[in-house]
Amino acid sequence: MAGNGKKIVDAVIKLFVEGGGFDRVMEKMRIVSAGEGRCVAEMMVDKEHQNKGGTLHGGMTATLVDIVSTLALMTKDRGVPGVSVNMNITYLKSAKQGDEIVINANTLKTGKNLAFLEVEITNKATGNIIATGSHTKFVGS
Amino acid sequence: MAGNGKKIVDAVIKLFVEGGGFDRVMEKMRIVSAGEGRCVAEMMVDKEHQNKGGTLHGGMTATLVDIVSTLALMTKDRGVPGVSVNMNITYLKSAKQGDEIVINANTLKTGKNLAFLEVEITNKATGNIIATGSHTKFVGS
Amino acid sequence: MAGNGKKIVDAVIKLFVEGGGFDRVMEKMRIVSAGEGRCVAEMMVDKEHQNKGGTLHGGMTATLVDIVSTLALMTKDRGVPGVSVNMNITYLKSAKQGDEIVINANTLKTGKNLAFLEVEITNKATGNIIATGSHTKFVGS
Amino acid sequence: MAGNGKKIVDAVIKLFVEGGGFDRVMEKMRIVSAGEGRCVAEMMVDKEHQNKGGTLHGGMTATLVDIVSTLALMTKDRGVPGVSVNMNITYLKSAKQGDEIVINANTLKTGKNLAFLEVEITNKATGNIIATGSHTKFVGS
Repeated sequence: MAGNGKKIVDAVIKLFVEGGGFDRVMEKMRIVSAGEGRCVAEMMVDKEHQNKGGTLHGGMTATLVDIVSTLALMTKDRGVPGVSVNMNITYLKSAKQGDEIVINANTLKTGKNLAFLEVEITNKATGNIIATGSHTKFVGS
Repeated sequence: MAGNGKKIVDAVIKLFVEGGGFDRVMEKMRIVSAGEGRCVAEMMVDKEHQNKGGTLHGGMTATLVDIVSTLALMTKDRGVPGVSVNMNITYLKSAKQGDEIVINANTLKTGKNLAFLEVEITNKATGNIIATGSHTKFVGS
Repeated sequence: MAGNGKKIVDAVIKLFVEGGGFDRVMEKMRIVSAGEGRCVAEMMVDKEHQNKGGTLHGGMTATLVDIVSTLALMTKDRGVPGVSVNMNITYLKSAKQGDEIVINANTLKTGKNLAFLEVEITNKATGNIIATGSHTKFVGS
Repeated sequence: MAGNGKKIVDAVIKLFVEGGGFDRVMEKMRIVSAGEGRCVAEMMVDKEHQNKGGTLHGGMTATLVDIVSTLALMTKDRGVPGVSVNMNITYLKSAKQGDEIVINANTLKTGKNLAFLEVEITNKATGNIIATGSHTKFVGS
């Protein structure tokens, strides 16, 4: 199931990246596992993800929170991406070029109308938390 | 002063965009005015800013909140960009291709250690609020 | 209309406070005006609102954001209080015993399912911002 | 150490509650364990914690996030409570009178200037998440 989830999410992210929209910024991100409301991805911080200070850009961090939590949500039964209502990101530590980061997203709850997701981004080598995110999406009709 | 602020911010954003980092996603954004802790920018939503649903990507919205509020902060006396501590974005309405959006950032307070910024993104034609953002940065040493 | 809104909100808050629930902590708050999605209240910071450091308690600040924004929402056509989905509070400056504070809440948007509210708490004498809040509520069925 | 942490936190919360300030709303909360940046507390939802709808008040939830995370922070070496910078609460599920709730707070990081805390409030009987909170405090000088 988790393996199957990964296949589906790999296909989804390929579609996203090749679509030519903003999701192209995820191009270098790899899905590690996906399924049952969870999605884990990895990415090496490269120049294209950085701010002028040479660290992972806060907007890129927010985009990682947005996308990986949405992928996690899409592994749930209904398979819907939903629409963002609120996103909160806390920045604990910087990540610099060459750092391998892990993006770990989890669906806390999906209801008829709302889905609640959380994300933790860590440095793969040190285990230090880089950022945490909370993402609420509307999934009703 | 506001005119001078705009000149400086224009130069800053040119540096940012040409640096080849993540700030390149701001390429099509134009600064309308800047100075005294405020920065107003405009952008036409194009394909490169969208999600697969054809509307402004939540990660791009977050990036606009991050960057324009940082530019607003840089117009203050000390001219520092600071480091993000927390960013909260609320998504009220979608924006679609061709929509002209206005990003209005304001510095609520800068202290010795922390700066507090807020952003409102509106649809230029209708005045409807697309998103609001709150951004806290560390500016101490 | 605004005057009538105040009458209704005064009655609502009387009900709330006298109900014996947590809303009793609002006992000393006075409604200044209410109507058309807005609500302005005032309160003198007293010992019962403080933390051990002698300043307005962060939990009390959050409660003020919650309640006054809900009152603002209830002045809208449908008159519903809704259910909280997300609340974000940023603390800019402390308030101490005897400080008169102003709580200014505004409904940014109400839709079929969600309502978006914002709050600013200021020191009445100095005009300094004490806290800002963003509150999203579910108002669907 | 954890046992010792609990003793200290018990003493701190007794001081808080008896101080006559806003912390009195924590009167019925019990500390389960505390130490090494963590604090777990329990409380039965009673009438005094509710809104007019008969469920745990959003302001009380926010206050629980604020206080239990602060207690968690105080078990760290420096023992400082810090000053709130930002607090974000997401409300997933209601809690009604008689429900036993568990408040679980954890220090993600403490630095020279900032401390990052997270809280999860669950229903003890069902394990369902009632709310999650993120709390950033300034601990510098």
